[in-house]
Amino acid sequence: MDFDLSPAARDLRDRAERFFTSHILPRNPDYQAWMAAHDVGNPPFLAELKAKARAEGLWNLALPKLGADEPGTRCTNLEFAPVAEILGRLPWASSVFNCHAPDVPNMEILQAHGTAEQKRRWLRPLLEGTTHSAFAMTEPDVASSDASNIATRITRDGDHYVINGRKWFASSGSRPDCEFLLLMGVTDPDASRTRRHSVVIVPTDTPGITLVRNLPTFGHMDRVSPHPEFRFDNVRVPVENLLGAEGAGFAIGQGRLGPARIHHCMRAIGTCEVLIALMLQRAGRRESFGRKIGDYANIQEWIALSRLELEQARLMVLKAAWALDRYGNKGARKEISLIKIGVARAYSYIADRAVQIFGAMGSTDDTPAAAAYTNARLLRIYDGPDEVHHRTLYRFEAEDAEQANRDLRAYLPSG
Amino acid sequence: MDFDLSPAARDLRDRAERFFTSHILPRNPDYQAWMAAHDVGNPPFLAELKAKARAEGLWNLALPKLGADEPGTRCTNLEFAPVAEILGRLPWASSVFNCHAPDVPNMEILQAHGTAEQKRRWLRPLLEGTTHSAFAMTEPDVASSDASNIATRITRDGDHYVINGRKWFASSGSRPDCEFLLLMGVTDPDASRTRRHSVVIVPTDTPGITLVRNLPTFGHMDRVSPHPEFRFDNVRVPVENLLGAEGAGFAIGQGRLGPARIHHCMRAIGTCEVLIALMLQRAGRRESFGRKIGDYANIQEWIALSRLELEQARLMVLKAAWALDRYGNKGARKEISLIKIGVARAYSYIADRAVQIFGAMGSTDDTPAAAAYTNARLLRIYDGPDEVHHRTLYRFEAEDAEQANRDLRAYLPSG
Amino acid sequence: MDFDLSPAARDLRDRAERFFTSHILPRNPDYQAWMAAHDVGNPPFLAELKAKARAEGLWNLALPKLGADEPGTRCTNLEFAPVAEILGRLPWASSVFNCHAPDVPNMEILQAHGTAEQKRRWLRPLLEGTTHSAFAMTEPDVASSDASNIATRITRDGDHYVINGRKWFASSGSRPDCEFLLLMGVTDPDASRTRRHSVVIVPTDTPGITLVRNLPTFGHMDRVSPHPEFRFDNVRVPVENLLGAEGAGFAIGQGRLGPARIHHCMRAIGTCEVLIALMLQRAGRRESFGRKIGDYANIQEWIALSRLELEQARLMVLKAAWALDRYGNKGARKEISLIKIGVARAYSYIADRAVQIFGAMGSTDDTPAAAAYTNARLLRIYDGPDEVHHRTLYRFEAEDAEQANRDLRAYLPSG
Amino acid sequence: MDFDLSPAARDLRDRAERFFTSHILPRNPDYQAWMAAHDVGNPPFLAELKAKARAEGLWNLALPKLGADEPGTRCTNLEFAPVAEILGRLPWASSVFNCHAPDVPNMEILQAHGTAEQKRRWLRPLLEGTTHSAFAMTEPDVASSDASNIATRITRDGDHYVINGRKWFASSGSRPDCEFLLLMGVTDPDASRTRRHSVVIVPTDTPGITLVRNLPTFGHMDRVSPHPEFRFDNVRVPVENLLGAEGAGFAIGQGRLGPARIHHCMRAIGTCEVLIALMLQRAGRRESFGRKIGDYANIQEWIALSRLELEQARLMVLKAAWALDRYGNKGARKEISLIKIGVARAYSYIADRAVQIFGAMGSTDDTPAAAAYTNARLLRIYDGPDEVHHRTLYRFEAEDAEQANRDLRAYLPSG
Repeated sequence: MDFDLSPAARDLRDRAERFFTSHILPRNPDYQAWMAAHDVGNPPFLAELKAKARAEGLWNLALPKLGADEPGTRCTNLEFAPVAEILGRLPWASSVFNCHAPDVPNMEILQAHGTAEQKRRWLRPLLEGTTHSAFAMTEPDVASSDASNIATRITRDGDHYVINGRKWFASSGSRPDCEFLLLMGVTDPDASRTRRHSVVIVPTDTPGITLVRNLPTFGHMDRVSPHPEFRFDNVRVPVENLLGAEGAGFAIGQGRLGPARIHHCMRAIGTCEVLIALMLQRAGRRESFGRKIGDYANIQEWIALSRLELEQARLMVLKAAWALDRYGNKGARKEISLIKIGVARAYSYIADRAVQIFGAMGSTDDTPAAAAYTNARLLRIYDGPDEVHHRTLYRFEAEDAEQANRDLRAYLPSG
Repeated sequence: MDFDLSPAARDLRDRAERFFTSHILPRNPDYQAWMAAHDVGNPPFLAELKAKARAEGLWNLALPKLGADEPGTRCTNLEFAPVAEILGRLPWASSVFNCHAPDVPNMEILQAHGTAEQKRRWLRPLLEGTTHSAFAMTEPDVASSDASNIATRITRDGDHYVINGRKWFASSGSRPDCEFLLLMGVTDPDASRTRRHSVVIVPTDTPGITLVRNLPTFGHMDRVSPHPEFRFDNVRVPVENLLGAEGAGFAIGQGRLGPARIHHCMRAIGTCEVLIALMLQRAGRRESFGRKIGDYANIQEWIALSRLELEQARLMVLKAAWALDRYGNKGARKEISLIKIGVARAYSYIADRAVQIFGAMGSTDDTPAAAAYTNARLLRIYDGPDEVHHRTLYRFEAEDAEQANRDLRAYLPSG
Repeated sequence: MDFDLSPAARDLRDRAERFFTSHILPRNPDYQAWMAAHDVGNPPFLAELKAKARAEGLWNLALPKLGADEPGTRCTNLEFAPVAEILGRLPWASSVFNCHAPDVPNMEILQAHGTAEQKRRWLRPLLEGTTHSAFAMTEPDVASSDASNIATRITRDGDHYVINGRKWFASSGSRPDCEFLLLMGVTDPDASRTRRHSVVIVPTDTPGITLVRNLPTFGHMDRVSPHPEFRFDNVRVPVENLLGAEGAGFAIGQGRLGPARIHHCMRAIGTCEVLIALMLQRAGRRESFGRKIGDYANIQEWIALSRLELEQARLMVLKAAWALDRYGNKGARKEISLIKIGVARAYSYIADRAVQIFGAMGSTDDTPAAAAYTNARLLRIYDGPDEVHHRTLYRFEAEDAEQANRDLRAYLPSG
Repeated sequence: MDFDLSPAARDLRDRAERFFTSHILPRNPDYQAWMAAHDVGNPPFLAELKAKARAEGLWNLALPKLGADEPGTRCTNLEFAPVAEILGRLPWASSVFNCHAPDVPNMEILQAHGTAEQKRRWLRPLLEGTTHSAFAMTEPDVASSDASNIATRITRDGDHYVINGRKWFASSGSRPDCEFLLLMGVTDPDASRTRRHSVVIVPTDTPGITLVRNLPTFGHMDRVSPHPEFRFDNVRVPVENLLGAEGAGFAIGQGRLGPARIHHCMRAIGTCEVLIALMLQRAGRRESFGRKIGDYANIQEWIALSRLELEQARLMVLKAAWALDRYGNKGARKEISLIKIGVARAYSYIADRAVQIFGAMGSTDDTPAAAAYTNARLLRIYDGPDEVHHRTLYRFEAEDAEQANRDLRAYLPSG
């Protein structure tokens, strides 16, 4: 057991740290100013930063199965995790290293299930960082965390699949530079619960796709990665756009969640470190009733508990990354479920305290606390609400206990 | 002890309920649509609804000291409380009865401290509902909950006061139809902590006032009651715009908070009732994994605890209203402090559950849950953060204990 | 709506307060010393105190249906509630006024369901305070909060009922001066869920009753009201010991819980007031790192939140008492369920803080905090665990919502 | 980074597991029965188990500085941690391997600070497991977590030290086979805060020591490791009983807490694993309202959160053990503080759920839940209450932030 990073991982992390500190963080004010002044798109210096990162070997680090012929540096999940944490300090930093959602999980799917032609046509531009994609699974009106509720139909018609239905929270799907959606729908409603779905590649300019609206979350419109609601009316895509086999959709969707969840969690941890640093700075400078607020026992408690929760969360995510590298998705399933609920909790508590310590300012956009507060809340819903993960974890535990079959009678003195 | 409303209070509440159900709630979709399509201002039917409410005697109910010559119906705090709850079901409903913040507390201040001429010029239009006002106290950079931190200067210069400084969260101050600010600043920095401030009336079109920006809260721009940041550079108002005496600002600010806090809390309770009703509807209709979600023990717990917390909160606010009517601001000071922290807690918990029960939809604006979630969070900061109220309550408790001077030794068996 | 006690209730409360302060509290050290030195029984001065209380009209106050021919003073639930709070300050005080559990709920059952002969033989001595009783319902091995799980059999055999089974937590049933048990068992296993049980009176000296053991709770043996486990092997009682009709057991058990729960909750509130008083005293005297601990923000928060939670809890219980007086058990069912979970929560939080503020001493018996801590924990289990009450409350809410049948569509802007 | 145990550590853990399962757990019913029947002392088979463990090399594993000439197997903190977890499953198991508190931390102190003669006379018998010791630091009446409050005086008088004062919670100090106390007191009241204390070895049969009483915790008398209160009246010990230098007491006390806290935390984790296993068994067997309680969403949540909290706690403690091995007490100070508050929280939540899932039975001694519930509560007080650790952690964080001196301005868009 060793809690130090390997020399290779440490070196990567240090290089990412230097790049972030030298090239990304200083541009944040420019980035914010540009975003405030423009409705869509990216600030021009982003492309320049991406080129620079790629030149330094900080590119596509989030893809542990990166091929030798694919651009970027292949890392294990455990090696990438500390980098993801660094990138999580700013909401837009991951895209500089081409390590941002949802393109990373979409690339993973295409790597795993795409034909050579699909890889050439759809994966390659994502790997180059020249285009964007989205994943369309969740639907309004139904509890999508139970996949059997998904209602969008994908019907074979000669050489085409015809899509009808509604999707929402296909995040990034409505940004102007999003080229295609990976859409999950029902191809065989009579098949068993895990065999009825398929995934097809749907170019965003296909006729019949209507952008109903972009959805605000907690009143906030995300302009970088908007959350669109789409209607699909007889949307036709050629049969070669089917990803994997018919009926493989459920399995594809499941596999998507492992590494992506680790990245997402590590980014949240990076955000939390920024919040703690800001809280500490505020605690040491702000005065109230004649004393530094850091002298007050409640503020001390907030900082102490934030450190506790964050340290626990980080260890758990690092262990999940390690388990995923070593035992694969299945072997790490419990760890992956745990980090989903655990990191969301830590993030929520820490963001809540950051808001409070900044007072009225904490509710504005003048600090990252307000955005963190609502993002943390979203984490408890996205990728399946907490309740679903509690249920899943209970089942894992019950199975494990059954297999262990421990004799517990001697623990019950009179029973 | 009697937990029934008096016949008069019940009659008033029933009339408000009928008006709300017949005339306000049905217009909510129109209201939302109008707001989505316009950047500022109010939908035209609002004036019509206000006239109708006034004609039915549902006008200025929030002013327990309403004069015989002032328009509207005078109510006690306890009589108005259930009406405030009804109006709290929709964020814009209070303005239909001219019972909305911040105009109500501003009217109270003008009633209590205004000269006859100030009342004619500034109070009357508010009572008529033809104009709007704001209160400018909080400042960026300092902990304004400790009034001694307030830095904006008000300097006498002949027949004028000259104002220099910055204010923010002067809510509604930047709406186009806001006519004036009540501004608190320092007139005598050498006076004692509670005698150094004064309040002046500042017309919003006075030269030297700069709207720096409107502030988002949790990413959301409030368009009905925006939260502006202002800069004041040598802003001159005539000396007759002084409200009350020089040095009376602290006392004016303190007195402002009693009834207004009750209204605010009852409105929050009204919002919570809507959330509970929506949760129950969702629980009875939504299915997940083959069962109504209302059959799940966790959903049942959420509803049960929401009812518990809301029932407790309502009783406490009603008692505070009763105490304020009977014993005045000072006699009800502990109750007023308690409801500030207590209702914010109940509201936060209930809104959090409502978000979760609606899942992804709960984060959008398709239900009132998302707005409630961030509004509840604000309640823990506005009007003094929780911490300040904990401190205040501790002092009340310590004083009361000292006066009671109970001999506790017999409770400590060996001590 | 009026939050003041009626003159009669205030007078009663003041008399109880004087009696408690003058005669009960000063004897607490004696009481504790006597209990530490004896294994069973009561200190001799208890009888003297009871006689004195009875002479002053402070007797049997907890029985709202006290007959004209029965000793004591008849009170409403609302009148008794503040007295119960006072008596709750010490665990043994209620018995001085003959207002202690489980004799009070047992007296209520006998009043409501007993024959004249049963009242003469079993109720009268309880009213006189000369004997004790217990209620035997809960069973080991089954979830007794679901009454259909109860397994003890009561079989008719000629002029007798024959009882076989096990009971536990028949509190007070093993004290030497306990004369009889009210025992609930199954008389007709084939009847519907609510018609299969009956209650019989079982003298404690009936052959076939085995005291298996007295149960500790959290390691503590209650010597005043021990929690026995009994085995019943062919225990025979005459048929005239049946209480009410055969099959009425479920209804009898349900009716038992209303007023008793109010008493229990008010006693808990009385305990909490003592804890808050002790916390305040400690906060004002104890020093740590050079300052009074009451100067620390966390201690201030603990006191403030304790007051908030207790004030809320008290209002809710008083409203439940009022509702029970006015609308009966059925009309007050929601309030009665709410106070069960609500007071247990407040009590748990307050006792937890009291333990912490007293540090190591808080874990000993030198303050009432440690006992309060474990008693509060028990409250979340006894009389049905929280989960059962959440379920019940959800159903009440769902029914109420269905009856109200409110049209909520206008609250959902786009839905 | 590697989350697997080293082969040596795994081998040790597996041997401990086998010993526990084969020899310790099966004797638990005997142990409980013996304890229920005897007031003091140990069951006779304990000595036999200890001999067997020692023969198998499972002896004194908790002493990372075990000398070559001292009996037992030397382990690192990280190697011992998983063994401590196993031993934590039963409260008496640690003593079988001679790895129990408070003897282990006392042995560490004697190893570090004892003279050769002190080691021969006092350490050796502890290493052999033939005697017992206690640590007397905490005092009634003062906040002992602030060492400057300690009041017991140790005065030099010729060849003796004379001790006067009071101590409590000198756990195990009153067991009949306790041979000596390590007592901390003030030798030089005028010295600086960290130089005024000294530690002396006090044989328990020294004249002038009065056992005032054994203290219950939450109503429970611990008979294995009782918590005595002592009075010291002119207790004389020879000067050679001074441990280390005069004035070194504070440093000795500080050093005592590192490894001991890791052991204590790992034992708590072992207890929690038993509780989770019992909860799972109960969830899969117990029925309520017609369904297994494990089918209810709230029970599922309890299990899931328990696993989450325990997994986080374990990782944190293992990291602390690793850091202690690698960087020493000072380098691991933050980790050591974190586990103190973090494990107490996890333990408290898990024990609380275990009590609830077992209902009335959960409050008795028929399961380990009740004892766990009160032990977990004690953890938040012993070794310094949470508040003191929050304060300490805040300071560590503030220092670290100051050293890092990160420029945070670019995170504050407009600030």
